[in-house]
Amino acid sequence: MEKILVTGASGFAGGHFIHYLLSHREGFEIHGVSRSVPAWDFVPSTEAFLRDHHFHRADLTDAAKVAGLVRKIQPDFILHLAAQSSVAESWRRPVLSFLDNATIFLNIIDAVRLDDNAARVLSVGSSEQYGSVAGNDLPLRETHNQCPASPYAVARVAQEQLAGIYAEGYGLGICCTRSFNHCGPGQDERFVVSSLVKQSVLIEKGLQEPVIHIGNGAIIRDFVDVRDVVRAYFLLLKGGKRGEVYNICSGTGRSVCDIVLQISDLTGIRAGIVSEDLRIRPSDNPRLIGDNEKIFHETGWAPEIPFEQTLEAMIDHWRQRLDRELKTRRTEHT
Amino acid sequence: MEKILVTGASGFAGGHFIHYLLSHREGFEIHGVSRSVPAWDFVPSTEAFLRDHHFHRADLTDAAKVAGLVRKIQPDFILHLAAQSSVAESWRRPVLSFLDNATIFLNIIDAVRLDDNAARVLSVGSSEQYGSVAGNDLPLRETHNQCPASPYAVARVAQEQLAGIYAEGYGLGICCTRSFNHCGPGQDERFVVSSLVKQSVLIEKGLQEPVIHIGNGAIIRDFVDVRDVVRAYFLLLKGGKRGEVYNICSGTGRSVCDIVLQISDLTGIRAGIVSEDLRIRPSDNPRLIGDNEKIFHETGWAPEIPFEQTLEAMIDHWRQRLDRELKTRRTEHT
Repeated sequence: MEKILVTGASGFAGGHFIHYLLSHREGFEIHGVSRSVPAWDFVPSTEAFLRDHHFHRADLTDAAKVAGLVRKIQPDFILHLAAQSSVAESWRRPVLSFLDNATIFLNIIDAVRLDDNAARVLSVGSSEQYGSVAGNDLPLRETHNQCPASPYAVARVAQEQLAGIYAEGYGLGICCTRSFNHCGPGQDERFVVSSLVKQSVLIEKGLQEPVIHIGNGAIIRDFVDVRDVVRAYFLLLKGGKRGEVYNICSGTGRSVCDIVLQISDLTGIRAGIVSEDLRIRPSDNPRLIGDNEKIFHETGWAPEIPFEQTLEAMIDHWRQRLDRELKTRRTEHT
Repeated sequence: MEKILVTGASGFAGGHFIHYLLSHREGFEIHGVSRSVPAWDFVPSTEAFLRDHHFHRADLTDAAKVAGLVRKIQPDFILHLAAQSSVAESWRRPVLSFLDNATIFLNIIDAVRLDDNAARVLSVGSSEQYGSVAGNDLPLRETHNQCPASPYAVARVAQEQLAGIYAEGYGLGICCTRSFNHCGPGQDERFVVSSLVKQSVLIEKGLQEPVIHIGNGAIIRDFVDVRDVVRAYFLLLKGGKRGEVYNICSGTGRSVCDIVLQISDLTGIRAGIVSEDLRIRPSDNPRLIGDNEKIFHETGWAPEIPFEQTLEAMIDHWRQRLDRELKTRRTEHT
């Protein structure tokens, strides 16, 4: 039975990926690794995964631990999701953010190299690697220059370049993604769409004044549903070319303000918008929209879930999560 | 009195830079920091520096130590030379090489950021950042794409991108070099020209069979005398533009084989050449030649020391060093 090792398994993309394997791709022995035990409230797979597969608790900044895991598991595939993936956080703690991301990734691929392991590795990168781009460069193709504009983005560029060096120089079976902004049920509220949805649901429940707080509303990003993203990860693990880089994107740009309006249409909630300086970063890219021709051509992948459906799923998820939290609080007070 | 902090002070470029300050640019309070106390045998400045200036022994991977130093010294200028700068070593120990270089650099600039210090910082990078380039892209201008082809080069690209982010995002006074291969008296024999000269002198003294061992003899690099390089560092510390990147190069390419022949002409030693597989790296750039128009235009810098003169100084230095070593050994045996 082929073995897949998923780093960052407890997280948002990790949970969706493992749920995808369990529900659509039977026949794998799944190994998840994270600092905390999975407890996904956004996919119904926590119990099945923990019962029938393998969870390893580990801090991936510990090289010896990572090497031991890779040696023991002997994975056929590694999906590397573990990362500190918030751009905003990387501005607040640039050194930690950069070094953690670089260390974790290097520990994984160096373990594969030293073990002479033939695993195929998917290195997950980010559209932030492109940095500030001119309007007539859109949509971005993989051949476009990278001008990273945050400590997070620099770490991702370094990761991709190191992946290329391990593929070329040491012969490892690595390929890379540049994943554009993904969203979907279960995403942390540090990320913009999840924050907007959560605020709307709080307003709906009378738990927040009818004002949505945003950073820079004019910023345009290319959003993909996480469930489409994890399907792309699977197809690239199986069929991506060694040393190659693939955009994972929808090809459509949406501004933060547009998303606020679209959520408002779905919830029926009318609220003011306040742009807060605090949330505006020292420097930011005005727009990032990707071209998904390459991955479509090589694997047949294209996004399938319309953005509206993503928002609906996120609204549902936040309603349920907040209801659960309120219930817990009420129970605690009685 | 203006204060200059030099990291990696005990090393090759560090020694030449401090010697340059002491002999050509009086009036600075010099602070050197390194893991080991300077004991330069290639410039006559060790004693004067240790007597009249300030040496701090520190491991720069220790963030708290670095922050303390920057706070205490309050430098006006920082020349950041400390690095693990061997490409070959970075192939043998990719993780350590990458992380050490990134950590040391981040510790320095983050200390400046957190201290709100107005120091001007020169971040020293490398021509290796360009990676494999096509013949018709030569000589390389600073605007050329970077395709780093070794773990060392990836760390240097990340360093330059982080420097740009600290300049733009946090307003620090950083500018960057891409220093092409430098050589001169005192260089470690892990670097190609110094290795070739040392071997020639060993052969001259009858201490090595008349065979020069090289890696790939066809590789072409742009060599600059370290004494020209440190003068460029001084000019950039004073006059380089924030956030800008400057090539430091001669504009002339030389193959390893050509250098062997030139050394042979200077020493009169005839020897065979053996290319050893072990020294050939997993992947390497066939040629790197830079364009120095930008630094010349902005600071007036151009290299002044002819390559032949560099080789002569290196031959003299290796003769003296080996004589000293032989003398020591003889003394030990009597």
